Amino acid sequence: MQQDKDTALDLQQIRQEIDQVDEHIQQLLNQRAKLAETVAKAKFANETNPIFYRPEREAQVLRKVMERNTGPLSNETVARLFREIMSACLALEAPQSIAFLGPVGTFTQAAAIKHFGQDAITKPIASIDEVFREVESGSAHYGVVPVENSSEGIVNHTLDCFKASHLHVIGEVELPIHHQFLISSNTRKDSIKQIYAHQQTLAQCRHWLDAHYPGVERVALSSNAEAARRIKNEWHSAAIASDVAAQIYELEILHANIEDNPENTTRFLVIGREKAAKSGHDKTSLLISAHDKAGALLEILAPFAKHNITLTSIETRPALPEKWAYVFFIDLKGHVEDDNVKHALDEIRPHVKELRVLGSYPIAVL
Amino acid sequence: MQQDKDTALDLQQIRQEIDQVDEHIQQLLNQRAKLAETVAKAKFANETNPIFYRPEREAQVLRKVMERNTGPLSNETVARLFREIMSACLALEAPQSIAFLGPVGTFTQAAAIKHFGQDAITKPIASIDEVFREVESGSAHYGVVPVENSSEGIVNHTLDCFKASHLHVIGEVELPIHHQFLISSNTRKDSIKQIYAHQQTLAQCRHWLDAHYPGVERVALSSNAEAARRIKNEWHSAAIASDVAAQIYELEILHANIEDNPENTTRFLVIGREKAAKSGHDKTSLLISAHDKAGALLEILAPFAKHNITLTSIETRPALPEKWAYVFFIDLKGHVEDDNVKHALDEIRPHVKELRVLGSYPIAVL
Repeated sequence: MQQDKDTALDLQQIRQEIDQVDEHIQQLLNQRAKLAETVAKAKFANETNPIFYRPEREAQVLRKVMERNTGPLSNETVARLFREIMSACLALEAPQSIAFLGPVGTFTQAAAIKHFGQDAITKPIASIDEVFREVESGSAHYGVVPVENSSEGIVNHTLDCFKASHLHVIGEVELPIHHQFLISSNTRKDSIKQIYAHQQTLAQCRHWLDAHYPGVERVALSSNAEAARRIKNEWHSAAIASDVAAQIYELEILHANIEDNPENTTRFLVIGREKAAKSGHDKTSLLISAHDKAGALLEILAPFAKHNITLTSIETRPALPEKWAYVFFIDLKGHVEDDNVKHALDEIRPHVKELRVLGSYPIAVL
Repeated sequence: MQQDKDTALDLQQIRQEIDQVDEHIQQLLNQRAKLAETVAKAKFANETNPIFYRPEREAQVLRKVMERNTGPLSNETVARLFREIMSACLALEAPQSIAFLGPVGTFTQAAAIKHFGQDAITKPIASIDEVFREVESGSAHYGVVPVENSSEGIVNHTLDCFKASHLHVIGEVELPIHHQFLISSNTRKDSIKQIYAHQQTLAQCRHWLDAHYPGVERVALSSNAEAARRIKNEWHSAAIASDVAAQIYELEILHANIEDNPENTTRFLVIGREKAAKSGHDKTSLLISAHDKAGALLEILAPFAKHNITLTSIETRPALPEKWAYVFFIDLKGHVEDDNVKHALDEIRPHVKELRVLGSYPIAVL
């Protein structure tokens, strides 16, 4: 009893301390918001069309937060809290509207909220083309589209949109991606004969499948959603798809998170009408239309190596309507204002039909 | 040019100030987290099964934050930031798992995140019964279920679950609800002959419909989702449903937010295994099984009036399997430990078959 009382007293005292800390945090939050308002006023006084969201500045703030963090809150947690604080301050200056590839509740919305915080106004848009159009027309400040979610086959579509658009890439977002082993209410668990999923997903779960369902036929379909839909009325099959798909098609998750590599992520691009300035840790996305000749790719790649530039991704797409000519999408580490990147691009330009910088932007912080 | 330079200097200076404020905020956030850890240690030392989430304490903190707020951040924004801060600190003590009526991306998930913050682990569950079972079995710490979303007809099902469960209501969440006027790609906009929706939704948009589609037939269906699904292949009809439904069924939003009352909200209940203590602004939910006789309801209601207790909602449900007997679900303002509530309940108890306090909990703060 005595002990209980002591604890109660202790608790009360600690809570009073927490209240004092809270009051102090609140003062500082409002002080920060006031400073942000001052920034907004200075911008309005000097620019006719001021831009309020500065991706490079935000990335710098978040990196600083993570560098100086001493815990106990983790770097990720404290950076996420600062994302929300910046989002709240930005909304006070000028609320930002973000078009994303819908529907509501998809990973793309999660990516938009992760990047812009909860105070941004997110608008679900039915197709990737329309997300581009929303941003081009000014109906939305920024757009968020998936780019490396190859299991659903939408990478290419996003890249194709850049061919016809002059929007800039101003940021990237990474989200962890998990695969679920799904069965329907009809499935006989003991006699699963087929496992459906997109080719890429089957590959990403290969070791797990080898261990748990050796010898069971794996059937590659056009998407994981299609796999989920198909097993709905089947007895001897299972699908691999996301928990969103499990919910939509009312399937049971028999085994959760079966991907071989738990570090699996999906990547999204943030698009806008203005370029992002240098943040210090940047990536650049390029679109290069090559001549149709032997060694074309080599001529493109050599200057990057020479100038010590790391490429993080290369995608090849046919440059319709011309047959047999190709467009390369290249991501590299560095900003287009870095000297080595500038020099490399200058050397490549004479050898290609077109070289377009889609954007330089901060490497995903979180 | 000079002016631009001045602005640039100003901006740089303000940003330095912001950085200083940020550093200070960060120190305090970690100090708060340390205090929360101390609370956790004290609890572990003295309780075998310590409870970390205290709804009444959280409500008190949020109310305090809103009361002392001087801006420029709005009360809602600053309270939302504190919700996230508390969520991050709580996750450090003991991560909380929240079962909610899925699928992912529904309003119920939004309610769960609004109430518990982003650091809670939310688990989509396929039915309301199963949400109850998840919490009863301890698979989830808490559950979130819709209760006053009468347009989809799920109120009653949640109430029915309480009849067979001993879980407590420990909180409520309110979300704004909007109705969209939807058409399919086949719809001939100029010759809409039917408008489908749930009865309740049609009622909630009556003035708007009278003004914009006078004389067009309104057809009540079992749910708004059913209405959205049905117009998919029709030419002369429209549906009223949520933007989620618009996305799922790939429909066009012809007119947005057509509800007559923009203050329209949906209400959700938070359920848990332990009771919530008094927060100072509380509500109580009761289940009362009445005798089958004339004046039964009056006998129940009179003591509330006598003790000056405000009722916020009454729902009547048949008490199956007994025919003609009824169960009342009553929400009132006050906590079951308030004297006037105690007295009222004591006076009612002898006149009814059963009186169960489903829970006393803080009134929704945000």
